[in-house]
Amino acid sequence: MVESQQIEPGKQEIVLTQAFDAPRELVWEACTDPELVSQWWGPKSLKTTVEQMDVRPGGLWRIVQRDAEGNEYAFHGIFHEVTAPEQLVYTFEFEGMPGHVLLETDTFEDLGGNRTKMTNRLVFQSVEDRDAMLQSGMRAEMDEIMDLLDELLKRQTSQKQAAPAR
Amino acid sequence: MVESQQIEPGKQEIVLTQAFDAPRELVWEACTDPELVSQWWGPKSLKTTVEQMDVRPGGLWRIVQRDAEGNEYAFHGIFHEVTAPEQLVYTFEFEGMPGHVLLETDTFEDLGGNRTKMTNRLVFQSVEDRDAMLQSGMRAEMDEIMDLLDELLKRQTSQKQAAPAR
Repeated sequence: MVESQQIEPGKQEIVLTQAFDAPRELVWEACTDPELVSQWWGPKSLKTTVEQMDVRPGGLWRIVQRDAEGNEYAFHGIFHEVTAPEQLVYTFEFEGMPGHVLLETDTFEDLGGNRTKMTNRLVFQSVEDRDAMLQSGMRAEMDEIMDLLDELLKRQTSQKQAAPAR
Repeated sequence: MVESQQIEPGKQEIVLTQAFDAPRELVWEACTDPELVSQWWGPKSLKTTVEQMDVRPGGLWRIVQRDAEGNEYAFHGIFHEVTAPEQLVYTFEFEGMPGHVLLETDTFEDLGGNRTKMTNRLVFQSVEDRDAMLQSGMRAEMDEIMDLLDELLKRQTSQKQAAPAR
């Protein structure tokens, strides 16, 4: 579940926040390592493939989700800013709605005690684009993928604790 | 002068529109050719240098304005979409305010009769960022640079008419 959301009528943004029981470096890794991203970036009913994820300013990313019938849902964008492990700024476009682009800013805040707060700020070209995204069932999907990310981080955190750096 | 503007209180966007007495291809060229961009992208009191302008998805652009005292004002961003001669989508950051990024969508519409309508849609990460840009004197500067672009297009149009394609 997304913990907190800010979706005001008539605005062209969505702000989601979430806290994880994981150190900031692990949350950053889960959001930027293609192998890890493919494990949570998409609902369980779909197979998620990170086709490209070049995490540097000007680098492209492309993610494809496939269902059992072979339907594909592809997304792509370009990184504008990469400030590890604090902030990512990138563009985002659903290829099923070409020409509609949003700017996403993901911020990772160290809460202390190996806890991290992630804020996703999505800014759309118009209120209509924002509302179309909401009507597409994006919020329910976000709840599911935040749970998947949370589970992945729990696994990663216990792995790191079991095998401390030498 | 910017012909029309849409700046509503509490919104995080600015929409500017302008019509030019020039065919769409020339307006596109004036906005994407570094040599031409340097002739209008900035007030007359500053020397504008296009340091980089790689017009393709993922391509970087960087423009520096210098005043007589040697002060520099630099801007950069990354192209997300390049659909010649119709639309450009790119990010924009003033290096004097790092971390504040906007998404700009420039649309070029053929009005017929060698006239072109340009729409610049600037979408900010927050209302505060939008208002800070407005308070920096951006609107007066936009009026000046739209006049410079208009003058450049008049020169380009008469050059093309004087030397038709063979």
